[in-house]
Amino acid sequence: MSEKSYPLNAWYPVAWSGEIGRSLFARKICGRDIVVYRRSDGEVAALEDACWHRLLPLSLGRLMGDEIVCGYHGLVFNSAGRCTFMPAQKTINPSACVRAYPVVERHRLIWTWPGDPALADPGLMPDFHWNDGEEWKGEGGTFVSLKCDYRLVVDNLMDLTHETYVHSDSIGHDAILDSPFEVTHSDRTATLTRWMKAIDAPPFWGKQLGKPGKVDRWQIVTFEAPNVVVGDVGVAPAGAGAPEGDRSQGVNGAFLAALAPETATSCHYFWNFVRTFKTGDHELTRRLTLAHVNEGKGVYDQDHRVLEAQQRAIDSNPRLPFYNLNIDAGALWARRKIDQMIAREGAAPLAAE
Amino acid sequence: MSEKSYPLNAWYPVAWSGEIGRSLFARKICGRDIVVYRRSDGEVAALEDACWHRLLPLSLGRLMGDEIVCGYHGLVFNSAGRCTFMPAQKTINPSACVRAYPVVERHRLIWTWPGDPALADPGLMPDFHWNDGEEWKGEGGTFVSLKCDYRLVVDNLMDLTHETYVHSDSIGHDAILDSPFEVTHSDRTATLTRWMKAIDAPPFWGKQLGKPGKVDRWQIVTFEAPNVVVGDVGVAPAGAGAPEGDRSQGVNGAFLAALAPETATSCHYFWNFVRTFKTGDHELTRRLTLAHVNEGKGVYDQDHRVLEAQQRAIDSNPRLPFYNLNIDAGALWARRKIDQMIAREGAAPLAAE
Amino acid sequence: MSEKSYPLNAWYPVAWSGEIGRSLFARKICGRDIVVYRRSDGEVAALEDACWHRLLPLSLGRLMGDEIVCGYHGLVFNSAGRCTFMPAQKTINPSACVRAYPVVERHRLIWTWPGDPALADPGLMPDFHWNDGEEWKGEGGTFVSLKCDYRLVVDNLMDLTHETYVHSDSIGHDAILDSPFEVTHSDRTATLTRWMKAIDAPPFWGKQLGKPGKVDRWQIVTFEAPNVVVGDVGVAPAGAGAPEGDRSQGVNGAFLAALAPETATSCHYFWNFVRTFKTGDHELTRRLTLAHVNEGKGVYDQDHRVLEAQQRAIDSNPRLPFYNLNIDAGALWARRKIDQMIAREGAAPLAAE
Repeated sequence: MSEKSYPLNAWYPVAWSGEIGRSLFARKICGRDIVVYRRSDGEVAALEDACWHRLLPLSLGRLMGDEIVCGYHGLVFNSAGRCTFMPAQKTINPSACVRAYPVVERHRLIWTWPGDPALADPGLMPDFHWNDGEEWKGEGGTFVSLKCDYRLVVDNLMDLTHETYVHSDSIGHDAILDSPFEVTHSDRTATLTRWMKAIDAPPFWGKQLGKPGKVDRWQIVTFEAPNVVVGDVGVAPAGAGAPEGDRSQGVNGAFLAALAPETATSCHYFWNFVRTFKTGDHELTRRLTLAHVNEGKGVYDQDHRVLEAQQRAIDSNPRLPFYNLNIDAGALWARRKIDQMIAREGAAPLAAE
Repeated sequence: MSEKSYPLNAWYPVAWSGEIGRSLFARKICGRDIVVYRRSDGEVAALEDACWHRLLPLSLGRLMGDEIVCGYHGLVFNSAGRCTFMPAQKTINPSACVRAYPVVERHRLIWTWPGDPALADPGLMPDFHWNDGEEWKGEGGTFVSLKCDYRLVVDNLMDLTHETYVHSDSIGHDAILDSPFEVTHSDRTATLTRWMKAIDAPPFWGKQLGKPGKVDRWQIVTFEAPNVVVGDVGVAPAGAGAPEGDRSQGVNGAFLAALAPETATSCHYFWNFVRTFKTGDHELTRRLTLAHVNEGKGVYDQDHRVLEAQQRAIDSNPRLPFYNLNIDAGALWARRKIDQMIAREGAAPLAAE
Repeated sequence: MSEKSYPLNAWYPVAWSGEIGRSLFARKICGRDIVVYRRSDGEVAALEDACWHRLLPLSLGRLMGDEIVCGYHGLVFNSAGRCTFMPAQKTINPSACVRAYPVVERHRLIWTWPGDPALADPGLMPDFHWNDGEEWKGEGGTFVSLKCDYRLVVDNLMDLTHETYVHSDSIGHDAILDSPFEVTHSDRTATLTRWMKAIDAPPFWGKQLGKPGKVDRWQIVTFEAPNVVVGDVGVAPAGAGAPEGDRSQGVNGAFLAALAPETATSCHYFWNFVRTFKTGDHELTRRLTLAHVNEGKGVYDQDHRVLEAQQRAIDSNPRLPFYNLNIDAGALWARRKIDQMIAREGAAPLAAE
C-alpha cells in the first residue's frame, strides 16, 4: 500500500454539469481548494480557491463577466488564473496569478486534473458514457464529503458479496456467495465477472423481467483506475443465451461510481443507477433513486454507514495492511492499479508541485 | 507520575450485568474497542470490536446463536474470537481471529482484562461485594465517557475535604476540615480513616439516625488499585462505641466507585451509594440516587463539572506534577499503588502487545 | 514575519469596565487563562485562572471579600495571588501562589499585561482616549474569540480599500481606490492618511453633514503597536479648509479597535464607533451600532466573515508570506512595528517565563 492514497495526475469529478453555472462553486479535490464556474461562452473554468494576495477564498467573491473579483480587496482574475486588476495601482505584478486547473466536461460531469497541467490529456479520461443520458437512463446523486478514503468505496463496489450482509433486505442473495467469479485486468482496469446461472430471480429483477422461470444473473464490475467503477448487472431467462452474449431477452442495468478524493480520509462520490429497459418510466426512475439513497434507508445509505465506520476503525487501529479473502481479488487488483499510478507519479515528480 | 496512566493487567468494569444480554454492546476500555454480549448459556463474551478482515466494528453486525456475524462481508466469529465462516470460500485461514478478552461477571458488573490474558486471574478482582445487592442496598448508575483521567476521580474520592467546597449545600461540614485523619496502606490498597467525634449530625445523617444528640461520624475510604474506591460512611450516637467497633446503634452507608479508563483523558465511572439501614425503603433509594445524579443538580454532577474542568486545565497547562497539601495523603498513596502496578507491568512486557 | 505573533510585554484589553464587578470573570489572553474581578475598593485584580494545588480554574470558585475561594478544596488566594488559606492545615506553604497580572483600568476598558510584571509601565498604555465617553460618543461592543490572528484585523483596518469590496453596499466608494494616500510612522505607530477631495459625499456622510455640494473626505488611520487602531474619519464641505486643519464646518467620527490575542489564531476585538457630532442623539448612536454589528448584517459582521475565512485559508495553505500590493503599505508598517516589539522581547527573555 502506498503512503499516498491517490495519484494527482488523473481526471476527477468535481460536480454535475447542471451544478455549474454563472456563479462560484467551491469544492476541495485531492486536498486542493478549487473554485469552479461557467464562462459566458459555456466553457467551465476551475481556479485555485485562494486569492494570490491574502488567500481569501475566491469563491467568497463574485463573477464579473468571465472573471472573478476577490471579495476582500477586489483583485480580479481571469479564467486562466491571471490577475487582471489590482486596486489602487496601475501596474500589475506580472507574476500575480492563481493556479488554473484543466477542466473537461463530459458525460454530464465536470472533471478536473489536480496534477501537472502539462500532462492533462483528455484522452486519459475514464470511460463513463453510461452516465451521458443517451442510451442508459438514470438520475443519480452525490455523496459530498463522505468520510472515508475513496479506495474503501472501490473495495466496496468491487466485491458484491457484501450485498448479502449489508443489503440482506433488498439485493442480497446467497447465490452471490455460491457462484464463482473471475477477475481480469488490463493496464488501467480490473474486471470482476460473476454469472449466477439458472437461479430464482431476486425480487427486483424478477419484476423487471416480467417472465416466470429461472434466470441467468450477471454482475460484471469494471474498475478504471484510479476512480471509476461501472457495474453491468442484469438477468435474462435461463438458457436464453445471455452468458454467451445475447442479452436481447433480458433486462440490463448498470451502477456507476465516479470518485474524487477530498482528503486522504474523505471523498466525493458521484453515483448513478442507469438502465436500458423501461427508460421512459419516470416513476421507476424515481423509485430506483430512492432505493439507493433515501434519508438513510437506501442501499447506498447502508454502505455509507459501513464505510464511515470502517474508516473510523482504520484511523484508530494500527493493524494494517488488511488481511484478505478470496472475495477481495477484484478489490486487490483495483488497488494495485491505483498503486501503480501513484508509483509512476512518484518517479516523475510534478513540475507544478 | 508514570507516563502511562493505567495498568493493562487489571480487571476493569465494562457494564452493569443488566446491560449485557443477547445483543451487541460496544465500549472502549483502556483504548481498546470491545464488543460484549451474553451467550445463550448465560456466559458473557468480550471480543475485539474490529473484524479481522476489514476492521468494521463487529458491534455493527449481529448475533447468530453465540457467534457474531460481521455486518460487512459476513465473516463469523465465535465467542473465543475464532473465525468460523468466511464468505465464498471453503477453507478458513486458521490464523483468522479477533482478540478475546477475559471476562468475569461479579458483584452485578461485567469486568474485563485488557492486558495479557494469561495473567487474568479472577483472584485479582478487587473486592466490590458492597455492590452485589445482598446486604447493602442501592441503585447506582454510570458516567460513560466522563472527560477526565480516571485518577482524578480517585483523587476526588480519596479526599473528602472537597465536600466542604464542592458540596457545601449538602454533605459538606466544617468538621471534615477540623478532624485529623490517618492513612494506612497495604500492597494494593490505601485507606483513609477520619473520625469526627461528638459533633452535630449533618442534616442527612441526623434524619436517618432518628435520635437527638451529638454523633460520632466516620469516613473510612479504601482504594484498591488500580480502580476501585469504597467509602464506608455513617454516624452513631456519640459515646455509643462506634469508634471502638460497635456500630449497632448507628446508621451505615457506603459510596462505591469502579472505574475504567476509556482513554488517557476519559473514563467510565460506575457508581453506587448503598446502605444497611431502611433497605426496604424504595422511596429513600430513589431519593439517594437523585441526590447523587439528578440532571446536573446532584452531588456527583457537581464533581463531574469540577473533574472535567480540572482535566481541561491540565491539558492546557504544562505545570505538572501537582503541588500537594496534607489532605492529599490518601490520594498520593492511591497514585503510588497505581504507579507500582504500571511499573511492574513495564518490567514484564505484555506477550499480547 | 516572526514565529511569535504577539509580544507579551504589552497592555491588552480584557473586558469593558462595566463587565467587571463583584463576581469572577474568565478570559484567555495571549494563551493565558485569566480570572478577573473587582475588589471592594473598586480596584480590579487579574489572577492566573488555575489553582496552585490541582489546577481547577479559580473562576469556578467564588469571591469571599476580596479573595477567591477555590471551588474544589477551598484554598484561598488574595488579589496579589498569594494563598491565604489551605484546608485542614495550619501552616501555609509560603511559595503557594498563583500569578497576578498587572491591571490598568482606563478609557472604559480593563487592560492587562501578560508578560513580565516588572516591565508593566502604565506609561506604555496605547492612547485610546476616544473611547472614554467624554468628547467622543459611541456605544461599541466586543467580538469574543474571533477566529483569526489579531494581525488580520490590523491588516483589515489599516487598508480601507477593502471597503469598496467587502462593504460595497454601505461605505464603499470608488474614490477610495482613486485617491493617493501616504503612510508615516514613529517608533510605535504607523499612520495612513487619505484625503478624497471635492467628491460626492457618500450617503451616510452626506446625511450627517446636512449640506449640499462636494465634500472633502478624510481617513486618517493610526495603528499603535501592538494592538490599537484608531481611524479618524469624516467629511467637510469642499474648500472649507479641512485638509489644512480646519474641520469646524465638517462632521467627524472615529472607528476604534483594541485587540487582544486569545491564541495565535483567535482574538478578542473591542470595537467602537464614536463621533463628535449629534452626540446627544441616542437613536443615531443605536443606528450606528446596528450598522456595525447586527446579527450578521452589519459592516463588521461582513469583516468578521472575511477574516475567519482568511484564517482558515492560511491554516490550510502553506503559501506564506503574503504577496503584497501598494495598498498594503499601512498594514506592512503596522506588522513591522509588531515584529520589532516581538524581536526586542526575544532579546531580553522574560524573567517570569
